[in-house]
Amino acid sequence: MNIRMLVYILGKVLLIEGALMLMPVICGLFYGEVQVFYYIGLAAIYIGAGFLISLKKPKNMTIFIKDGCVATALSWLVLSVCGCIPFVLTREIPSFTDAMFETASGFTTTGASILTDVEAMSHTSLMWRSLTHWIGGMGVLVFLLAVVPMTGGSNMNLMRAESPGPTVGKIVPKVRSTAKMLYLIYLVMTLTEIILLFVCGMPLFDSICSAFGTAGTGGFGVKNDSFASYAPHIQWIVGVFMIMFGANFNFYYYITTKQISKAFKMSEVRVYLAVVAVATAIIFFSLRGMYDGIGETLRQSFFQVSTIITTTGFATTDFDLWPTIAKFILLSLMIIGACASSTGGGVKIARLQIMFKSIKREINTYLHPRTVKKIHIDGKPVDGDIEHSVAIYFFIYLVTFASSMFIVAFEGHDLVTVFSSVAATLNNIGPGLSLVGPTHNYAFFSDVSKWVFIFDMIAGRLELLPLIVFLTPSTYKGIFKKTPRLQG
Amino acid sequence: MNIRMLVYILGKVLLIEGALMLMPVICGLFYGEVQVFYYIGLAAIYIGAGFLISLKKPKNMTIFIKDGCVATALSWLVLSVCGCIPFVLTREIPSFTDAMFETASGFTTTGASILTDVEAMSHTSLMWRSLTHWIGGMGVLVFLLAVVPMTGGSNMNLMRAESPGPTVGKIVPKVRSTAKMLYLIYLVMTLTEIILLFVCGMPLFDSICSAFGTAGTGGFGVKNDSFASYAPHIQWIVGVFMIMFGANFNFYYYITTKQISKAFKMSEVRVYLAVVAVATAIIFFSLRGMYDGIGETLRQSFFQVSTIITTTGFATTDFDLWPTIAKFILLSLMIIGACASSTGGGVKIARLQIMFKSIKREINTYLHPRTVKKIHIDGKPVDGDIEHSVAIYFFIYLVTFASSMFIVAFEGHDLVTVFSSVAATLNNIGPGLSLVGPTHNYAFFSDVSKWVFIFDMIAGRLELLPLIVFLTPSTYKGIFKKTPRLQG
Repeated sequence: MNIRMLVYILGKVLLIEGALMLMPVICGLFYGEVQVFYYIGLAAIYIGAGFLISLKKPKNMTIFIKDGCVATALSWLVLSVCGCIPFVLTREIPSFTDAMFETASGFTTTGASILTDVEAMSHTSLMWRSLTHWIGGMGVLVFLLAVVPMTGGSNMNLMRAESPGPTVGKIVPKVRSTAKMLYLIYLVMTLTEIILLFVCGMPLFDSICSAFGTAGTGGFGVKNDSFASYAPHIQWIVGVFMIMFGANFNFYYYITTKQISKAFKMSEVRVYLAVVAVATAIIFFSLRGMYDGIGETLRQSFFQVSTIITTTGFATTDFDLWPTIAKFILLSLMIIGACASSTGGGVKIARLQIMFKSIKREINTYLHPRTVKKIHIDGKPVDGDIEHSVAIYFFIYLVTFASSMFIVAFEGHDLVTVFSSVAATLNNIGPGLSLVGPTHNYAFFSDVSKWVFIFDMIAGRLELLPLIVFLTPSTYKGIFKKTPRLQG
Repeated sequence: MNIRMLVYILGKVLLIEGALMLMPVICGLFYGEVQVFYYIGLAAIYIGAGFLISLKKPKNMTIFIKDGCVATALSWLVLSVCGCIPFVLTREIPSFTDAMFETASGFTTTGASILTDVEAMSHTSLMWRSLTHWIGGMGVLVFLLAVVPMTGGSNMNLMRAESPGPTVGKIVPKVRSTAKMLYLIYLVMTLTEIILLFVCGMPLFDSICSAFGTAGTGGFGVKNDSFASYAPHIQWIVGVFMIMFGANFNFYYYITTKQISKAFKMSEVRVYLAVVAVATAIIFFSLRGMYDGIGETLRQSFFQVSTIITTTGFATTDFDLWPTIAKFILLSLMIIGACASSTGGGVKIARLQIMFKSIKREINTYLHPRTVKKIHIDGKPVDGDIEHSVAIYFFIYLVTFASSMFIVAFEGHDLVTVFSSVAATLNNIGPGLSLVGPTHNYAFFSDVSKWVFIFDMIAGRLELLPLIVFLTPSTYKGIFKKTPRLQG
C-alpha cells in the first residue's frame, strides 16, 4: 500500500475543505454572526494542517485500485468528521453522532436531517451545510484530480471509486481534463440557477443555498417547510434544475462541444426523461381532486418525481398522504435513481438498462441457443466485466439493504419507516415515508440506527464496493510493502 | 417446435390429473358427499381425453430448451384450469377467477386462499385441494419423467424448467432414475408423516391433508384457524417435517445410499439449518412476555420460522401482531426461501450462497487483481454460466416483483399489504402481513390483482424464466418448423 500517497491525498482533502470553509466565513461576516469565529479558526487549522501534511509530494504517486478504495473511503471520513466539528463547537448540533449524521448526509448529498428547526440555525452554518452538498455532488477527489497532476492509472483508480455509475464516462482522453471539464459544467450550471432564482425574487442567501442543494442533488433547505412556501414559478425552476443535475453529464459535454446529435442519441438520458414523464403522468392522475386545479396538481406531481428520482429530497407537499400507487411510484424512483455520471444517487438508469438487456439476451439464448451476443448500449458493446460488476453491485446492494433493515428494525418502528429510511439513506435521497416522511426528520432514531444510516449514506454515495474494500481486514495485509512505481 | 410432442406431454399430464382425482373420489364416497359425482365425471373425462390424446407416441421425442419451457408452462396452465373446474361445478367456489386462484395456489404450493370459511367445504374438495399441493410440490413433469422414457437431453430440458434451484442435482446419472428416486423419497416421507400424525391423535382425514400440505410445502389446511387449535406436539411434528421437506432432497438420497458423510457435508443444508436456528433464536427473544412460558414461545417461534422459510404457510398464531424485528425476519425468510431441489419456494439458499461467494470473489479481485478464481461450493467449482444465471434470476425476480407491486398498488391498500402479498405469492408462501396476514385471506382483492397473483405464483414455482419464455412472442417464430431428431 502506498501510505505516503494516501497521507498526501488526505492532506490535500483537508486543505480543500479548509479553503471551502471560507465561504461560510464570508457569509457569517456579512451577517455578523458570532458562530463565524469557530469557522475562521477551523478553516485556519485545516488549511495549515493540510498544507503541512501535503507539503512533500511523494516520489511514487501510483495508486492501485485497492489503494484507490481506501483513499476514497478515508477522504470521505475525513471530510465528514472535520466537516461536522463546527456544528458541535457552535452548539447548534451538540451531539457528535447527530452532527456526523448531518454532515455525512450533506457530503453524500442525501439531505436527511436530524434538525427539528432548520430556521433556528445561523446563516453561517446553513451555508456550510448546503455547501457540503455542492462539494459532495461532484466529488472531492474529482476536484483534487482536476487540480493535482497524477499518473494516468492512478487517476482512474481514484475516479472509478468516487464517480457514480457502472462506468466512468471517458468523455475526454485525459482524466485530468475530464475532471476539469466536469467541474466547469457543474459551476456554470450552478451559477445559472443562482442567478435565475435571484432574478425571480428569491433572497440571495436562499438562492445560493438552494442552488447548492439542487446541484449536488442533496436536498438540505433553509426553511422548515423545505420548498412548500416558495412561489410556484420558483418551484418549477428548481424542479427543472434537479432533473438537469440528475442527467448524465456527458450530455452537457457533448452539447458544449457542439456534438448535439450525439447528445440527444444518449439512450440513458432518453430513458431517464421517459421515466420522469411516465411517473409524473401516473401520479398526476392518481392525485385528482387533492389539489386546486390542474396546474397545481401537475406542479406537485412533477416536483416530487423530480426531487425523488434525482435523489435530491426537497419537498413541496407531504407526499406521505398520497394514495398508495403514488407512494409506490416514489419508492420505486428512490431505488431507480438518476443517471450515471450525474450528481444523483440510487441504482442509476444505466445499471437498469444493462439489467434489462441482460434479461433480453438471456431469453434470446433460450430461443437461439447457438448465438452468443454481447449487450449493446448506444451502439457500443458493453464489456462482460461491466455486466458482471452490475450483478455484483445488485448483490451487495441487496445485502446492505437487508442488513441495515435488520439493525434498524430492532427499534420497533413500523415496517414502512424501516424500509423507507434505509432506502432514503442508501440511495442518498433524504425523506422517506411514514415516520421519515417529508414533514418529519431523523432525530428520533437511536444512535445505533443513526450510525447505520451514516454507513449507508457513505456506502451509497461511493457505490458500495470502495467502502466494503476499505472495511475488509485483508486489505491491510502487507500494508507496508512498497508499491511498484508506474508512469502513466 | 415439436408440437406433436407438446400435445403428447399435455395428454399425459391430463391423464395423470384425472387419475389423481380418484383420490378425492374415494374420499367423497367414504363420506357420502354429493360433490363426488362431479369428481367422478371429470376424472373420467380427463382420463379418457388424456388417454386418447397421448395414445400415439410421437416418433420424434426431442425437446429443446425452448420447447421445454413452453411444455412446462402449458402443463401448469392445463393442470390449474382443469383442476379448478370441480370447485366451480360444485359451486363451492363459484367464481372462475377465485377457483383458478385457489387451484394455482394449490399446485404452486403457495397456500394463499380466497376461502373465508374453509370448514364449509366438502371433504372431497378439501382432499383435492390438499392433493394439488402434493402433486405440485415435486412437480408433475418430474412425475411424468419417472414414468415415460425419453431421450436424455429432452428429459433434462423438461426437468430443468420445472425443478427448483440453480442446478438440477444430478444425483444419479440418468434423469429417469433421478425422478423415480425423488418421488420414492417424497412418498415415503409423506407416509411417515401421515402415520405419525394419526398415531399422535389427529383424525385420519386431517392427517392426510396436513401431510400433503407439509410435503408440498403448500400450506392449505382444513381448519379456519390453520394449525392453532391442534395440540402442541402435533405442531412440533409438522414444524419439523416442514423443515425436512424444505431441505435439499439430495441429502436424503445420500442418506438412503449410505453416503452419510457426504450428506452432512452439504453446505446448503447446513446453512439452511443455521438460518432456521438463528431466526428462531432472534424471534424467541423478541417475543418475551407475549406467550405463556418458554415452551410455548419456543414452539411459536420455531413453527412460524419453519412455515415461512420453507414457504409452506401454515400458521399457529397471528404473527402480524409480533414486534417489527420479528416481522422483518419473517419477511426476509419469505424471500430467502428453502433449499434448491426441495419442494419449497423462494430465492433458495443455494442462490444466496452463490451470491455471497460472488461478492467475496469480487472483493478479492480488488485486493489481488491478477488472480482469477472460480467460486466453489462443497469443494466443487461453480460454472460461470450458473453464476450468470443466478444474476439473471435476480434481475427477473426484481422486475417481476416491482411490476406486480405496481399493478396491485392501484387498489390502494397499504404498502405492507401490497409488498407482502406479492412476496407471499411470488415466493409461494401464502400468508403475508397486514391485510393478507395469517388470520386473513385474499378474497377482497380485485380480479385484476388476483390474476397478477396467479401469474406470480406460477412464475415463482417455475422460477420465472420458463413462464417468461412462454410469454415471449418470438418463441413462436417458425412454430411449424420440424424439430431435428436427437438420440439420447
